[in-house]
Amino acid sequence: MATAGVAVANGSGGADTRAAFKEIYSTLKEEMLEDPAFEFTDESLQWIDRMVDYNVLGGKCNRGLSVIDSYKILKGVDVLSKEETFLACTLGWCIEWLQAYFLVLDDIMDNSQTRRGQPCWFRVPQVGLIAVNDGIILRNHISRILQRHFKGKPYYVDLIDLFNEVEFKTASGQLLDLITTHEGEKDLSKYNLTIHRRIVQYKTAYYSFYLPVACALLLAGENLDNFGDVKNILVEMGTYFQVQDDYLDCFGDPEFIGKIGTDIEDYKCSWLVVQALERTDEDQKKILFENYGKSDPACVAKVKDLYKELNLVVCPDRYVLIIYSEVSM
Amino acid sequence: MATAGVAVANGSGGADTRAAFKEIYSTLKEEMLEDPAFEFTDESLQWIDRMVDYNVLGGKCNRGLSVIDSYKILKGVDVLSKEETFLACTLGWCIEWLQAYFLVLDDIMDNSQTRRGQPCWFRVPQVGLIAVNDGIILRNHISRILQRHFKGKPYYVDLIDLFNEVEFKTASGQLLDLITTHEGEKDLSKYNLTIHRRIVQYKTAYYSFYLPVACALLLAGENLDNFGDVKNILVEMGTYFQVQDDYLDCFGDPEFIGKIGTDIEDYKCSWLVVQALERTDEDQKKILFENYGKSDPACVAKVKDLYKELNLVVCPDRYVLIIYSEVSM
Repeated sequence: MATAGVAVANGSGGADTRAAFKEIYSTLKEEMLEDPAFEFTDESLQWIDRMVDYNVLGGKCNRGLSVIDSYKILKGVDVLSKEETFLACTLGWCIEWLQAYFLVLDDIMDNSQTRRGQPCWFRVPQVGLIAVNDGIILRNHISRILQRHFKGKPYYVDLIDLFNEVEFKTASGQLLDLITTHEGEKDLSKYNLTIHRRIVQYKTAYYSFYLPVACALLLAGENLDNFGDVKNILVEMGTYFQVQDDYLDCFGDPEFIGKIGTDIEDYKCSWLVVQALERTDEDQKKILFENYGKSDPACVAKVKDLYKELNLVVCPDRYVLIIYSEVSM
Repeated sequence: MATAGVAVANGSGGADTRAAFKEIYSTLKEEMLEDPAFEFTDESLQWIDRMVDYNVLGGKCNRGLSVIDSYKILKGVDVLSKEETFLACTLGWCIEWLQAYFLVLDDIMDNSQTRRGQPCWFRVPQVGLIAVNDGIILRNHISRILQRHFKGKPYYVDLIDLFNEVEFKTASGQLLDLITTHEGEKDLSKYNLTIHRRIVQYKTAYYSFYLPVACALLLAGENLDNFGDVKNILVEMGTYFQVQDDYLDCFGDPEFIGKIGTDIEDYKCSWLVVQALERTDEDQKKILFENYGKSDPACVAKVKDLYKELNLVVCPDRYVLIIYSEVSM
């Protein structure tokens, strides 16, 4: 599957929520530029300012907004106090910062060209591999923000532990993806449902679906140990949406999904190829092995034809339900 | 200055200390391989096992050993209990893990060839830019180790905050170094004593000199806020040792320092070039600008001759004292 464009459904955020959320970004960025833990030069100030804007902004902010929506639902209110709004938005931005950190580094590792409609940060002139350190700085900003605004709260340690654990799961999922997809010879026999599910859960679902809700739970004073079921359901939701993303990469309307998918060309461990491998006879398997991971459009077409032959293509308005029933097997 | 081979004087560690320290490494690594926060595959287990050995081991462990020595001095004892030894060694290894994380990523950014007598991790076949994610995993291991062994201790939050703050300072120092040294056109007029000092303090001194002692202080139940002077002195010591490292890179005996220095060729913001810039007249400045940062041995020789002309070379057994008096100006 591709890293980009996970369709996060939770946390769509009304216009008011969005406005409040955006406003708090400037405050947080200013604080980062005035952090007394480092003696900035003019040049390094300008660098950080530009780097944070370039990488943290420009996304849909679904993950961040989801913290505010989840917190409102937990409290059973439509309107939050100023203090509550600030804290919920701040945690939301921490998740957006985390996402920026992952994307900056993922794009380097995947040698990607564009992200959110602009060149990847490491491709910007004068940046190059300084982007590795910028990724680290983005991650460090989260710790700085949490310390500044949550130190002294009874749930401060839990917040730090949460971000650390989710980051560890994500990096471990990314390793699994990298060594499964890229290491050595291309070998489709490494791909199966178990490995696909594991990569998706760890690399995407925990930070995109569980983390926003877990932040809201901590803010509401809850103990995360009492919400194991919530975690499991959210991770399932995350898995489902990545499966949908994999499907749309191949069969979605480029107009609708905003990109031309290249999972087949890129030899991605997509839900489609994994399903195909489960269903092929020996002749079909041969076609798949011979054509998957090649940029030649004729090869790509053969793979897509095989997917159709294997009944992996569904009526557009029904695919969500059907894919879900597959996933929840 | 070069990142490599900072001569850390504190924490030399006796033979017994070294043996106890080494033993605990295996325990910590095993725990990382059995971490329930991720469902490892056989392949990912083998990867992590090899990656941790390759990058965490092989150094002199001065930073790590320094935690144990500092703790013994603070407690005024020669022998520690089994529990105390374990905790001090564990914090020492956290610093070694931090060092490994920095080095893996620095080597990618500097496009380095070798580290500790073997190819840099990203140059190992099949690794490549997966090393970026491996660096992240090494950093995450520290949080996992701290949570496993220190959660519940009264100083747990302080330990996490300490590692986070020192990491932030280091990454900020690294940014300063990267944008001063590499960004755009080579421009010696960017180099001066103030910038050299700031890079060295943030990029090297905090994590190499302050962090080990701060860990020992927390373990001994002390409040770091009461030890501002200790921090300042240790950061000065770190600065001094980096200055020595810069000096030896140019004028040290390669037999003694274990490498052939290339700071002049690499256009490094070395203490020597910064001192030279302070002392040159217009003609000498021209020689420096024309020859610094070039790999031609004739250019390197002209720079070294200029250093000698400017009285930057001292009698081997006296340079430590003389350099120190310069630094403490």
